[in-house]
Amino acid sequence: MKRYLLAPGPTPIPPEVLQAMALPIIHHRTPEFEALFADVRRDLRLVFQCRNEVLMFAASGTGAMEGAVVNTLSPGDQVVVIRGGKFGERWAEICEAYGVRVLPVDVPYGTSVDPGTVADVLKREPGVRAVFATHSETSTGAVHDVQALAAIVGATDALLVVDAITSLGVMDLPMDAWGVDIVVAGSQKAVMLPPGLAFAGLSDKAWARVPESRLPKYYFNFTAERKAIEKNQSAYTPAVSLVVGLREALRLILAEGLPNVFARHDRLARAMRAGVQALGLELFAEHPGCACTAVKAPAGIESGAIVKGYRKRGITIAGGQGSMKGKIFRIAHMGYADNSDVLVALGTLELVLADLGYPVKLGEGVRAAQQILQK
Amino acid sequence: MKRYLLAPGPTPIPPEVLQAMALPIIHHRTPEFEALFADVRRDLRLVFQCRNEVLMFAASGTGAMEGAVVNTLSPGDQVVVIRGGKFGERWAEICEAYGVRVLPVDVPYGTSVDPGTVADVLKREPGVRAVFATHSETSTGAVHDVQALAAIVGATDALLVVDAITSLGVMDLPMDAWGVDIVVAGSQKAVMLPPGLAFAGLSDKAWARVPESRLPKYYFNFTAERKAIEKNQSAYTPAVSLVVGLREALRLILAEGLPNVFARHDRLARAMRAGVQALGLELFAEHPGCACTAVKAPAGIESGAIVKGYRKRGITIAGGQGSMKGKIFRIAHMGYADNSDVLVALGTLELVLADLGYPVKLGEGVRAAQQILQK
Repeated sequence: MKRYLLAPGPTPIPPEVLQAMALPIIHHRTPEFEALFADVRRDLRLVFQCRNEVLMFAASGTGAMEGAVVNTLSPGDQVVVIRGGKFGERWAEICEAYGVRVLPVDVPYGTSVDPGTVADVLKREPGVRAVFATHSETSTGAVHDVQALAAIVGATDALLVVDAITSLGVMDLPMDAWGVDIVVAGSQKAVMLPPGLAFAGLSDKAWARVPESRLPKYYFNFTAERKAIEKNQSAYTPAVSLVVGLREALRLILAEGLPNVFARHDRLARAMRAGVQALGLELFAEHPGCACTAVKAPAGIESGAIVKGYRKRGITIAGGQGSMKGKIFRIAHMGYADNSDVLVALGTLELVLADLGYPVKLGEGVRAAQQILQK
Repeated sequence: MKRYLLAPGPTPIPPEVLQAMALPIIHHRTPEFEALFADVRRDLRLVFQCRNEVLMFAASGTGAMEGAVVNTLSPGDQVVVIRGGKFGERWAEICEAYGVRVLPVDVPYGTSVDPGTVADVLKREPGVRAVFATHSETSTGAVHDVQALAAIVGATDALLVVDAITSLGVMDLPMDAWGVDIVVAGSQKAVMLPPGLAFAGLSDKAWARVPESRLPKYYFNFTAERKAIEKNQSAYTPAVSLVVGLREALRLILAEGLPNVFARHDRLARAMRAGVQALGLELFAEHPGCACTAVKAPAGIESGAIVKGYRKRGITIAGGQGSMKGKIFRIAHMGYADNSDVLVALGTLELVLADLGYPVKLGEGVRAAQQILQK
């Protein structure tokens, strides 16, 4: 059976990238790797839209999240964590694991934070050292207004730390222009690589905090990594094959051009939303992002049955996590994704729903999407 | 120019493994990945020669080293660290980064620890919570007597934690039989994969320590990982493509059979040593291991010139690290390595040395190696 991967990470890898990674491996302490690393450094800064170096770790994105915490904070520091899903909650878990006091700003799953709430908390609690946010909350499909948050946090001494794991290369996040202090990302979303690389970009304001931080760290030590990166090396053995693939993936992104990449993701997301709504289904996120579309399962149908219906047809999508399990399903359209993926996703959704007894007119969702893709 | 990789990690990847990793990526929350993961779990236990689960992290080996520290110790704990090279020193650096007090047992670079010294320290300091050792010290080529250390540490309350990054799949290390408490390994040495996976196997004695540990941890939390692994998952997104490659690599190792794998490494190492000695060169390690051979550069020749001589011929070997820089060079013969690699290494060494004005009879080193390979 022909396979399709439409889940929010890992996402499909372009053949150019797979091919590069399948070549015989090279050693990391060689002029050849150093030249490759220099290319990757330059291109990462372009994709992060930041002037400072982007650090790279052999880890999943969570590793760089931990790095953002342990390199900028000290025991007992107070931080704000915006929580509206599994990944916002992860920021709080990491902080708590390290004895950092968390002031949660909770919003219901599927909704996005009102930046004014964060402004109020910062006014009330002037000692807050950092605000942790999620640009695209993969577990709910919601996007948070990072630009507004940056304007608010930027006026204080606090750092704004953003999980952009599912948004980098999907939605515009001009780190320097908006004044985001730390942007964390991973390789397996719109960067179009297998999982195993984590990234962190830091503003000057964030770097100024690093020497003061008294939380323990070793593998995710940002200072050691920055020192190494300046020599086109990493502090510990890098994930060489993924770095080789990264050069190709970044080339593809930059050849398409960031504005075009964002426009493509926006188009796919709008088409997907129009398609599911045309089938009478409801979106889960109030402000849906462009990386993946979270959809409420129709009354009487467990979302797991929809995931299984796709799987039966060779296609991997995702269900809901935690308390959203059984209630929503999530279809990604990020990274190496194009119109065809939306057509496959919606055409199959119609078949799956029909199978499950949901009243569906075949082709209605697809047509609604086509009307957007056509423009 | 045809390329050869003869450095001590990354090491060459077998074509079967490269091919498996070049297939379209699969999602990690699928029955397909879970079946793959179950195979990997089973085969890892066979290669680690342990009954308990082997944990797996998306990280380089250093990440699992950090995990071994932060999951078993608490602030102020006292530990013994055996240091005879860069990687022994790394254990101490990690412990110190986390406020663990280190009693160093230092041996000169190139030598191996006398297990009796460790026994004496443990007698004098009964409060020691762990002994950190390196099975194969990659920076010097020396092997430490882990079996003797295990017998000594096993009679105390301390844990024996062994960095086997460059020894797993090279030299016998029957973890359960010898009573080693934690074995840490990485993917890019004799496991024949690209870097990016780190492993840790724990004895029951080590697991009993984990709940008491009060050092902070999140990404390298062993308890969370063990819970996930029992469901054929990992706590955070796994490095899927490397895990796919791992299944193939472990299959290759087990198809050859561990005793044959160890015998092959022993043969290659003996041939390499005989070859360099036949050229009048001296080994750096007093008790050399079978993963890589560290050789003293002859008087008047900087070892970097030898490394460059190889590089000019398309071959990557390694020089010395830290204070050994310029003084030694290191040639690996581990993982996807066979007789041919030793012949290439020695035949090229003769050419390089002749170029550098060292008196060498072409073919003498090769012949000495052949006499061993012939048996």
